[in-house]
Amino acid sequence: MISPDDALQVLLRPGNDFVRARSVADQISTAEDLVVLTLGLLQDGIQRVKIGVDVAEDELAQEITLSISMPRKGPERLLRYNGAMSLVVVGSVAYDGVETPHGKVERMLGGACTYIALSASYFTSPKIVAVVGDDFDAADRELLVSRGIDLEGLEVAEGKTFFWAGVYSQDMNDRTTLQTDLNVFADFSPKLPEAYKTQPYLFLGNIQPALQKQVFGQMANLRFCGGDTMNFWINDFRSELLKTIEDWNFLLINDSEAKLLSGESNLRKAAEKIMAMGPKNLVIKRGEYGAMLFRPDGLFMVPGYLLESVFDPTGAGDCFAGGFVGYLAERGFDLNGEIDPHELHRAVIYGSAMGSFCCEKFGVDRFRTLTREEIDARVEEFRKFTAF
Amino acid sequence: MISPDDALQVLLRPGNDFVRARSVADQISTAEDLVVLTLGLLQDGIQRVKIGVDVAEDELAQEITLSISMPRKGPERLLRYNGAMSLVVVGSVAYDGVETPHGKVERMLGGACTYIALSASYFTSPKIVAVVGDDFDAADRELLVSRGIDLEGLEVAEGKTFFWAGVYSQDMNDRTTLQTDLNVFADFSPKLPEAYKTQPYLFLGNIQPALQKQVFGQMANLRFCGGDTMNFWINDFRSELLKTIEDWNFLLINDSEAKLLSGESNLRKAAEKIMAMGPKNLVIKRGEYGAMLFRPDGLFMVPGYLLESVFDPTGAGDCFAGGFVGYLAERGFDLNGEIDPHELHRAVIYGSAMGSFCCEKFGVDRFRTLTREEIDARVEEFRKFTAF
Repeated sequence: MISPDDALQVLLRPGNDFVRARSVADQISTAEDLVVLTLGLLQDGIQRVKIGVDVAEDELAQEITLSISMPRKGPERLLRYNGAMSLVVVGSVAYDGVETPHGKVERMLGGACTYIALSASYFTSPKIVAVVGDDFDAADRELLVSRGIDLEGLEVAEGKTFFWAGVYSQDMNDRTTLQTDLNVFADFSPKLPEAYKTQPYLFLGNIQPALQKQVFGQMANLRFCGGDTMNFWINDFRSELLKTIEDWNFLLINDSEAKLLSGESNLRKAAEKIMAMGPKNLVIKRGEYGAMLFRPDGLFMVPGYLLESVFDPTGAGDCFAGGFVGYLAERGFDLNGEIDPHELHRAVIYGSAMGSFCCEKFGVDRFRTLTREEIDARVEEFRKFTAF
Repeated sequence: MISPDDALQVLLRPGNDFVRARSVADQISTAEDLVVLTLGLLQDGIQRVKIGVDVAEDELAQEITLSISMPRKGPERLLRYNGAMSLVVVGSVAYDGVETPHGKVERMLGGACTYIALSASYFTSPKIVAVVGDDFDAADRELLVSRGIDLEGLEVAEGKTFFWAGVYSQDMNDRTTLQTDLNVFADFSPKLPEAYKTQPYLFLGNIQPALQKQVFGQMANLRFCGGDTMNFWINDFRSELLKTIEDWNFLLINDSEAKLLSGESNLRKAAEKIMAMGPKNLVIKRGEYGAMLFRPDGLFMVPGYLLESVFDPTGAGDCFAGGFVGYLAERGFDLNGEIDPHELHRAVIYGSAMGSFCCEKFGVDRFRTLTREEIDARVEEFRKFTAF
């Protein structure tokens, strides 16, 4: 029988919440011993412990795995919906025409900023910076408002809203762009309302890197900022892009973009090179195959959610982004504090869940009915189908 | 404060080791309460519990997740290496010529049966059924023997051993076959030694479905049996294949084979159709993207291990198979007993780990030095990079 003090003596390691302590574990021979150990750990706020036990007495090897996950107390971490500290999202608000094997919609609300903000709105109150034309529909504006999205930074310019149309292949792994009319988006110059500039979270959607940098420069109190980009900027605006992402805490890109940006075909090597460019939290999205989070201190991977049928994958990557950064905003995540990497892992799971919901209906339609309870239930599903 | 009895009253559900019990959780307000609960659960051998707690008293929402994983006692489950109940593996033993971007080997030991048996040899003592020619090298035989593999069923026929040569693409996602000389393998007719016929585990490697069925028919005491197949048999021997796999407990195939066999492009739908054909434990391998296990009662998914560099992927799928079924043989897994699906999940993880080791060197070279400690450490890595 060991005392909690003895246990803590061995198990406590500053800055390390995952400890393998053979020497203690070997002394545990009954369930009571384990409970005494647990008690000590809980009282001292230990977050995650793994214990391997070999019980010699009865000549049977026995393995006990005990993991305890206990978020620290503190108001920021415990709010379920964090409207106080919000997220600024910059990007496109658009109309899309989409055809998939499941159907065709000529014109519906779309755009990266739209998807990111709608997805993040389940966790925090996003403030968007975007431009639309004078054809922007009141019903679409109303949808965004109904989800608590701040539209003060949504500029209405003379002309038409950005329009994109595309058609997906039978297996939906490829899509062909049929039409891209930039319209008012061609001259988009993000204008930040004063109230936006002191917000702690910033997501810079896929626009010109210099514009992303300009927005970043106006934010005064950032806790966690980053964004995404695309092949076009990587290829043709490389030096601007590198100057932009060097300020970022996180970057979300897909695997082919990661390979292009780094010049490495192995993702582990690619990630190392990209983290050296600035963003120390690198999310690599792999579509149906899931996502990975690289950090200098470790790696997290999750498979994609296996949907029965995918109606329309448009916006799934943006919804991932909204869930990822939205969840962190809700939790009051702060790089200056003590970081629990599992908080970032859970952000990747919430991102994955949001991406999967997006595919279940055309365009943004899923967000007309989706509830936070459904989201939390899907996160539990992720836990169940990845548990071993 | 609640008593263990109260807790167990609510938390115990027959046949269900994953319980969400809000009503009990709401009564827990201190770490001591949780420990009392834990104590009760451990004493009654509960395997996995999840508790969500909302503590109202201090007006801070708090979440506690406690998961306990405790394999039941019992000699079969607790042996680390199970030599008593062994695994029969049927398939090819061959020589391979392989070229990858990392190098070229003209002729080295290969074949599905070889890889499966070497991989499984870290968990149980495999007995192989295969044929080689009179050119089969004594050193190669010695490698197999040194890993505890029973060669009584390895027939030596007049002629040459099966030879295959191929070259991998730069990113190693494709390979081109340069040469296939079936040699003595062309007339392979598996002959089971008497001692093999009473073994409880059987893996039928990728050979003619009728031959697989014939071997299956000779096994008297099977606990868990199955195997793999390939496009050729699915396309040209479909009815034979269907008659063969209807007897199987498990099938291991890759995603393109699953789609071909089922005629469904959605993997969830494909899996349902394949399980209806017989095998109620369906492992779908996705190469670098990981693997999935489908069962009528649920789904498990794991991402692929992210190697720094892949030297030679030849045999990785077979090593996955060897790890999967080898681990279950070690555990004394029995479909007739009470099944813990997490045992099968862990088998998929061991399979994934073995597949990843295989790629680290050319051919079977990694198995010349690999230790069980390295394998267990990699399984722990899987746990770490999938934890959230």
